[in-house]
Amino acid sequence: MSYKPIIGIMGPGDTMLKTEQQLAYGLGKAVARQGWTLLTGGRPVGVMAAASRGAASVGGTVIGILPDEQGTAVAEGTTIPIITGMGHARNAINVLSSHGIIGCGLGLGTVSEIALALKARKPLVLMPHNALAKDFFDALAPGAFHMTADISQCIDYLQSSLQPGEG
Amino acid sequence: MSYKPIIGIMGPGDTMLKTEQQLAYGLGKAVARQGWTLLTGGRPVGVMAAASRGAASVGGTVIGILPDEQGTAVAEGTTIPIITGMGHARNAINVLSSHGIIGCGLGLGTVSEIALALKARKPLVLMPHNALAKDFFDALAPGAFHMTADISQCIDYLQSSLQPGEG
Amino acid sequence: MSYKPIIGIMGPGDTMLKTEQQLAYGLGKAVARQGWTLLTGGRPVGVMAAASRGAASVGGTVIGILPDEQGTAVAEGTTIPIITGMGHARNAINVLSSHGIIGCGLGLGTVSEIALALKARKPLVLMPHNALAKDFFDALAPGAFHMTADISQCIDYLQSSLQPGEG
Amino acid sequence: MSYKPIIGIMGPGDTMLKTEQQLAYGLGKAVARQGWTLLTGGRPVGVMAAASRGAASVGGTVIGILPDEQGTAVAEGTTIPIITGMGHARNAINVLSSHGIIGCGLGLGTVSEIALALKARKPLVLMPHNALAKDFFDALAPGAFHMTADISQCIDYLQSSLQPGEG
Repeated sequence: MSYKPIIGIMGPGDTMLKTEQQLAYGLGKAVARQGWTLLTGGRPVGVMAAASRGAASVGGTVIGILPDEQGTAVAEGTTIPIITGMGHARNAINVLSSHGIIGCGLGLGTVSEIALALKARKPLVLMPHNALAKDFFDALAPGAFHMTADISQCIDYLQSSLQPGEG
Repeated sequence: MSYKPIIGIMGPGDTMLKTEQQLAYGLGKAVARQGWTLLTGGRPVGVMAAASRGAASVGGTVIGILPDEQGTAVAEGTTIPIITGMGHARNAINVLSSHGIIGCGLGLGTVSEIALALKARKPLVLMPHNALAKDFFDALAPGAFHMTADISQCIDYLQSSLQPGEG
Repeated sequence: MSYKPIIGIMGPGDTMLKTEQQLAYGLGKAVARQGWTLLTGGRPVGVMAAASRGAASVGGTVIGILPDEQGTAVAEGTTIPIITGMGHARNAINVLSSHGIIGCGLGLGTVSEIALALKARKPLVLMPHNALAKDFFDALAPGAFHMTADISQCIDYLQSSLQPGEG
Repeated sequence: MSYKPIIGIMGPGDTMLKTEQQLAYGLGKAVARQGWTLLTGGRPVGVMAAASRGAASVGGTVIGILPDEQGTAVAEGTTIPIITGMGHARNAINVLSSHGIIGCGLGLGTVSEIALALKARKPLVLMPHNALAKDFFDALAPGAFHMTADISQCIDYLQSSLQPGEG
């Protein structure tokens, strides 16, 4: 295989939480440092933007799967912009293209991606800790994801979950 | 406008619950009796199949938005099969094409559709009552949906929520 | 099978040719009279609009597969609007969902649909006669389509080409 | 902008022509040498495979936009596999994501992409020379593409056609 594992970081575009943005930045950086390719929803806002900047800060490869047709609004740090022109239908592409997925924060789009990730049985980490989300998704897919607030634990879980051919 | 309102009924394909299937059948019937067009995910299983049969039992129009490329496995009662060949990406079409949406039961695909419906601010009813789902979605979109176990209440809520031009 | 055959009429949205619009209107009418469901690209312009009006004039069922997310601009006569929000990617849905296809006139979008129809081995009629298009597509898919300027011949060809289960 | 221009090479998956495969290999190599990112349909056959190998032979970045859901059959040399799970609907993504497009040979899928590329007014080169294709597309979009059998001319044309911000 000539390609590196692709790790998707999914999270709200409209987050105002400083802690969530710092978490996303740290995750993007950690994914890139691990030698993995980062995938995001590509828009220049919220978790997508912060994760992309984090990965770019250490020279990472960053795929942005854009929802619109123009491809003019792209998160800084994106090195591979993919223009789908298909709005939220691109969420399915985000999930299928990722070998492992990190849900960082919770928004409605993020929830749709978490649900599809569980359906596709992808290695999945939800961050940070959220008791309500844990109970909700555990009822739907018992034991199928890991929840943590710690970046190292997240990376370790994904590393151990990737298929041999992917790592 | 020459078309009738389209109401999407979304629910798990793998449900084994007799009560959920009966609820779906009753909902499909009620939607058709109201003069509305029913939309489902089109597969011949679970909630999709039961709702389609319910609507067909009273001569309703039933759109099935199919995920596969062949279009050979179609729920009985479907009068308008739409073949997308795009798997779960078709969930976005289900939501965009519906003027109002009923989530009947909870599966992972259904959760992805509920999240997109809330994001698109569509009139939405979740059935039956589920305290965990209520808390989870209320935290994400406060007051943006109705939850009930009663078919009449569901129909009344949708009727009052449809835009004037749609009713 | 509880559904009628679906015949897609594909053609340019920006046609100014009176003859092309009359042909599209006549084709829509003929498809509906045959008891078939009409499918178009759903926009209120050109061949889509004329074919939809033709089918509606005799009470036909008309599916419109819309490219945008809003679904506000819909061809008059459409009874089943499907909102994809995925631009030209919806051309693939137009083709997969049609049991037979009529290319009425030539535009760039239409050419993309004709090519996909030939690839999917769908019964296909190109109208009206166009020597250059005949030579071009014949070189790519010898004998795989019918070309005519006559509406009755078009309907007869499709009727004889539909699978037994579809007619 | 932190990303390199993306050049899509589109061509038949079932080509048996040795000359077409050599042309595709040479084009992939030339695109990568120019410092551009290559985009293909990602499957391990025909023009896609040859162009990907060509670009990989000089260390190029190669995006493969895959039609299926599994992502197991990927052209050698692909460094960024994108799994769409949406069959030919992904042709629209191929076109939207490319800053410039090369049609290498003619197949039905390729024709659908050429038509969408012209519709989106993307810089487009058709190779090798084909009088019938030239006449056909010139009638639809006069002067909107370049046709040549020479790789250097192809690269020069694309270089001069890319927007300032893209080069």
